[in-house]
Amino acid sequence: MRALLVDQAKPGGVVLVEDYPDPRPGPGEVLVRVDLAGICATDLEIVRGYMDFAGVLGHEFVGTVVRGSDALQGERVVAKINCVGPGSTARDAEAHKHAPDRTVLGISGRDGAFAEYLVVPAENCHVVPNDVSDRRAVFVEPLAAACQVIEDHPVQPETRVAVLGTGRLGILCAQVLAARNCRLSVIGRNAATLALCRRIGLPTRDVADPELKADYDVVVECSGSPDGLRAALRLARPRGTIMLKSTYARTADVDLSPIVINELVLAGNRCGPFDEALRLLREKRVQVDEMISGVFPMTRAAEAFAAARDPQNLKILLQPGAP
Amino acid sequence: MRALLVDQAKPGGVVLVEDYPDPRPGPGEVLVRVDLAGICATDLEIVRGYMDFAGVLGHEFVGTVVRGSDALQGERVVAKINCVGPGSTARDAEAHKHAPDRTVLGISGRDGAFAEYLVVPAENCHVVPNDVSDRRAVFVEPLAAACQVIEDHPVQPETRVAVLGTGRLGILCAQVLAARNCRLSVIGRNAATLALCRRIGLPTRDVADPELKADYDVVVECSGSPDGLRAALRLARPRGTIMLKSTYARTADVDLSPIVINELVLAGNRCGPFDEALRLLREKRVQVDEMISGVFPMTRAAEAFAAARDPQNLKILLQPGAP
Repeated sequence: MRALLVDQAKPGGVVLVEDYPDPRPGPGEVLVRVDLAGICATDLEIVRGYMDFAGVLGHEFVGTVVRGSDALQGERVVAKINCVGPGSTARDAEAHKHAPDRTVLGISGRDGAFAEYLVVPAENCHVVPNDVSDRRAVFVEPLAAACQVIEDHPVQPETRVAVLGTGRLGILCAQVLAARNCRLSVIGRNAATLALCRRIGLPTRDVADPELKADYDVVVECSGSPDGLRAALRLARPRGTIMLKSTYARTADVDLSPIVINELVLAGNRCGPFDEALRLLREKRVQVDEMISGVFPMTRAAEAFAAARDPQNLKILLQPGAP
Repeated sequence: MRALLVDQAKPGGVVLVEDYPDPRPGPGEVLVRVDLAGICATDLEIVRGYMDFAGVLGHEFVGTVVRGSDALQGERVVAKINCVGPGSTARDAEAHKHAPDRTVLGISGRDGAFAEYLVVPAENCHVVPNDVSDRRAVFVEPLAAACQVIEDHPVQPETRVAVLGTGRLGILCAQVLAARNCRLSVIGRNAATLALCRRIGLPTRDVADPELKADYDVVVECSGSPDGLRAALRLARPRGTIMLKSTYARTADVDLSPIVINELVLAGNRCGPFDEALRLLREKRVQVDEMISGVFPMTRAAEAFAAARDPQNLKILLQPGAP
């Protein structure tokens, strides 16, 4: 089958292989035909060497089950990315996230979704309702990660929340927070993506606004940059909380003394509840259509990755089955 | 009066002045004769430029009230370091810590305790019981900061706690935690201070122990070094908590990705409840006598500061009234 592999020796860090061996489902696993997949910031880090991953890249996808489970046969599915074997003692999605013996789709020890087919544990799959299109369902994985913010840190109507960064993850986090009732500001520096935020009803501020000050109860840092972390440390009120959503793959040279002086809490989280993400998409509480900046066949993967690196673009999708 | 001022142009960063103007208590303030003061890691940072502080250094002290309050006249006192004026809206010690208009004894906008006399707000003073000696009472301020760890993050008998660092603050935090019931390890690399920990009954491990792994529910980072933060990120279990106790005055070049990958909470705190610290000293739940490595008159301040910088020494004290 056709598959996109990490290969740091190649330009762009990926190589398209036409005759990659077809995957075969093991016990408890299903074979899924990948219909649509999304390129994520983590993928861009992996092709630069993050996680030392070798194999088929990709972890955001929607596909159709073709083998391995009578219950799921023919169903359109999305799948949680942290996988454990049938013998693992980790019994739920929260435990899977931290199981020492886990593999992670397209990130660690397991081939991912930038291929015509992939295998995943059947227990990781969530069936996509008919009224959620492929182009929306492909956002379930990052949207679930965004939902984890309020799982870990519930907000109240009076909670002042800043989302820092207007990239893919920032806009999803902002919409999840806007779907709850809280006092939200989306803070960024990219005029185009800030304008998109306003079009979908999100209140925005420019990060250079001199009136911004340390009065946010919660700052959700989605920029993944040292500058973003610096801004988060400046905007959180004393005893406030900063949620880190992006894996800082490279070392952040940031003065951390405000954490102690202002008695801040810095909390990281990743991955989240797929059922909640599917609900938000079904109920159209979250809009993703405008975030799609391009859809590419795998033969144009290098071009797709270049587009995904451009901050003017939000989500770049791949169609593994397209010619 | 005799006072020790920050002066970065001088060797050691301090200068002894014999004719510094006597301080005068304002409304709500008392004049205190300083009997004994302690040099803290923050002082060592300040003389290198941290906080851009100018004035009399020092914030750990025990003294005797000589003017300004009938109720406190002649009493032996220790004092909280965050000060607000009578008109401030910050009404309790927690609010004082973060009041935008606060001054901080010997750290920000207010002369400190390395002098024959100082003034502090009467409301900041705690009377020292007769059965707590000066040499013990001078530890109240850092011991209160250590108590704040369990104020913010209560521990249970089954909680696995690592204290990282066997300096002044680490040994105090470890004793506060040992006075509660929890599964404690004090982790360090200094053989002498690790031995002292064992003499006072604290269970120790060497930071280079290859069997140490990510299985601590709570890691209290007291080393103040980037290496210590790296070790804390390595030792906290998934979804565990790291408490930062030291102000990282300089930028820490540390890979923060474990915060997101392992969904850690990094929480800073400083200052704490003086009443609890006095109770622990009275009840001899915390031992500080062995931590005193030297007592110097102010005329030997440069020597005292050099001693305080030596990791073999724990607490160095100054006697402002000694000839």
